[in-house]
Amino acid sequence: MAFYNFSSVYSNPKGSPIRALYKHLSEPGMISFAGGYPDPQLFDVEGLRQASERAFDNSKACLEYGATDGTPRLKDEIVRLMHARGVSAQPENIIVTTGSQQAFDLILRVMVEKGDRVLVEQPTYSTNIQAVHAYQASVQSVPVTADGLDVLELERLLSSASVSGQLPKLLYTIPNFSNPSGATMTRERRIRLLQLAVQYQLLLVEDDPYGGLRFKGDAVPSLMALASEVPGAQDWVVHLSSLSKIVAPGLRVGWAVAPVEILRRCSVAKQSADVGSSPWTQNIAAEYLSGGRLEKHLSHICAAYGAKCRALADGLRRELGEELAFHEPSGGMFIWARLTGAVTASELLQQAIARGVMFVPGEGFQVDAADPFSLRLSFATPTLDEVATGTRRLGEALADTQARKSPQTLLA
Amino acid sequence: MAFYNFSSVYSNPKGSPIRALYKHLSEPGMISFAGGYPDPQLFDVEGLRQASERAFDNSKACLEYGATDGTPRLKDEIVRLMHARGVSAQPENIIVTTGSQQAFDLILRVMVEKGDRVLVEQPTYSTNIQAVHAYQASVQSVPVTADGLDVLELERLLSSASVSGQLPKLLYTIPNFSNPSGATMTRERRIRLLQLAVQYQLLLVEDDPYGGLRFKGDAVPSLMALASEVPGAQDWVVHLSSLSKIVAPGLRVGWAVAPVEILRRCSVAKQSADVGSSPWTQNIAAEYLSGGRLEKHLSHICAAYGAKCRALADGLRRELGEELAFHEPSGGMFIWARLTGAVTASELLQQAIARGVMFVPGEGFQVDAADPFSLRLSFATPTLDEVATGTRRLGEALADTQARKSPQTLLA
Repeated sequence: MAFYNFSSVYSNPKGSPIRALYKHLSEPGMISFAGGYPDPQLFDVEGLRQASERAFDNSKACLEYGATDGTPRLKDEIVRLMHARGVSAQPENIIVTTGSQQAFDLILRVMVEKGDRVLVEQPTYSTNIQAVHAYQASVQSVPVTADGLDVLELERLLSSASVSGQLPKLLYTIPNFSNPSGATMTRERRIRLLQLAVQYQLLLVEDDPYGGLRFKGDAVPSLMALASEVPGAQDWVVHLSSLSKIVAPGLRVGWAVAPVEILRRCSVAKQSADVGSSPWTQNIAAEYLSGGRLEKHLSHICAAYGAKCRALADGLRRELGEELAFHEPSGGMFIWARLTGAVTASELLQQAIARGVMFVPGEGFQVDAADPFSLRLSFATPTLDEVATGTRRLGEALADTQARKSPQTLLA
Repeated sequence: MAFYNFSSVYSNPKGSPIRALYKHLSEPGMISFAGGYPDPQLFDVEGLRQASERAFDNSKACLEYGATDGTPRLKDEIVRLMHARGVSAQPENIIVTTGSQQAFDLILRVMVEKGDRVLVEQPTYSTNIQAVHAYQASVQSVPVTADGLDVLELERLLSSASVSGQLPKLLYTIPNFSNPSGATMTRERRIRLLQLAVQYQLLLVEDDPYGGLRFKGDAVPSLMALASEVPGAQDWVVHLSSLSKIVAPGLRVGWAVAPVEILRRCSVAKQSADVGSSPWTQNIAAEYLSGGRLEKHLSHICAAYGAKCRALADGLRRELGEELAFHEPSGGMFIWARLTGAVTASELLQQAIARGVMFVPGEGFQVDAADPFSLRLSFATPTLDEVATGTRRLGEALADTQARKSPQTLLA
């Protein structure tokens, strides 16, 4: 076999912690709380079929190369969507990307160099820990509580980094129904975060794929919307979003809204990264958004996810009781939980898989001092019946694990 | 305005040299030999419409997340296509990417680090010079003649680099109807290149978007196909290709065929780069390829491009005569030419735009010692009538430029 001299980042690559679980997904009867995927039963198939047909009426626009930044029609629709969310963006503030994943990658590409410091939430979306490592930056975490990012902790960190001259370049946050924590940052914390960003010239990268999936309570304005209330803050916020969770991930349509100077560089970077995302799916997305079905579709899927979330929370309380602590989220797809006894999440997972139910241990979502008792459960994909069965299996799996862990219980 | 601390690569980014010309494209009556785009009149619109409808019969597969490496159906079709091209790849040797542009970016990502050396042809595809610079590698060029890469020059370079211990990591080549040179590497040179790759552990990245567009002469086997004839060479070839030039760029379907060890890393890199390319357009591409229309479509478009190439070559000879030297290519989309007098390509371009015709000066395609008299002309997009008018305008523009350059001619 040849000896390849790989880049040091990829000399010994680790895939996502979730990919390791994929093989179990296809086991017969397996109920999965593991994935972070929207429920395919909830796709607006008819609306998307019609959008696809309408888009192809202008076949040339679908089949030719499109603009690297995104097709003008889709950018106009994104402007409209962002306005509805309280953000007054212009087309020149927007770049369309292959999912918001690529938007984050482009931001890292143009901002971050080897040795830079990047802040993430603890816990955070695991793939984006990898993404930062790919740029050879060091990753440091700031804890998240039920009210979102702990801004007091962040302030302490920035103030001491300022003294040592090692200020981080950017902070990556998922303020609404975070993956994996499910937490939403309060308005007060958002304002404080914006003030800190200005003070320490910290670029805030706000990832908001789940904001549209609120099923109870009132929306909190995004960091980008609130930036107009904090002097100087508009320069320091990049907003990422996507149609993956609210329409369909297969479109691979995401975007960044950012200051023009940053976007111009993202566009140059995207040119050599992939020339441009598919204009065909962009035009389908534009047709779908302009067709006016999104609002109704969103209220439909929010109701469905809300019901599934309640079912999961009720099931967990019923089947695991005090053994599992968690906050019920107000939207999104995830419940973040913590085992309160001696059993770790990885130990439970082994028995759970044997019982036909899956979740993701929390360690992969944590950068430092990972909590082995934490875990992430998604309520998005399983049916209500599966949620009931799955939580019962989880309770049984926990009992199994406890029994195996304490041989004396067998003698009791 | 905020002061952003950009990554050094993007602190002062240069876009592609071709982008600077875009603004003239929309001028009324402009005839463009500048773009590198397939002719939209030649798209198999009906075939793609049918493929799109068939693909959406399995709407879930279009709308859900797909595998990061590509959808299994499309990989199977690519295996078949590569077999027809003499390459016995397996699905595990293939990653589907957003155009072959992304494939090259991923290869650079997993192989190249700051300070590494990368070889390219002179002249070469300008966006990929940018792509290498994005990884902070140094780019060195190896000349191309009418028979493709100058392997004697390469051998000299490698042998002296070997002495100084500074061997390059990879070489990027476009062996068939190169963009921009139009040149095709002979079989003998390909074999020698493979031997050198083994001897110097040099990864060859073979970019082959145009190989299917041969309109005269016999195909030369790809480096990847020939690698089986050179002991050890199969470890040192990565093959990139795409449907952009033979079906439609809007699909954004490209791929890499590579040794499994390299591909596994590309897959990890792609996970954080964009999670995966659109499964929707991948499924449309798979339907199109399995529908069996490609072969007939290819003979149709090859005939059309062949006629346009002849028309451009004839027009250039007729209108510019000895003032322009070039080799007529046997396929692809480009004629590379050289002005033999005192007028540079940039000087000519100014007058040409004034006369309503465009091309790309050759300097942007060259890394070092750029030749100011070289230029690239694409015959892909203009009609035969436009080729005739465009070459006449070029001849007039050359006369204009010569007149302006030599004031004494006005007195003669």
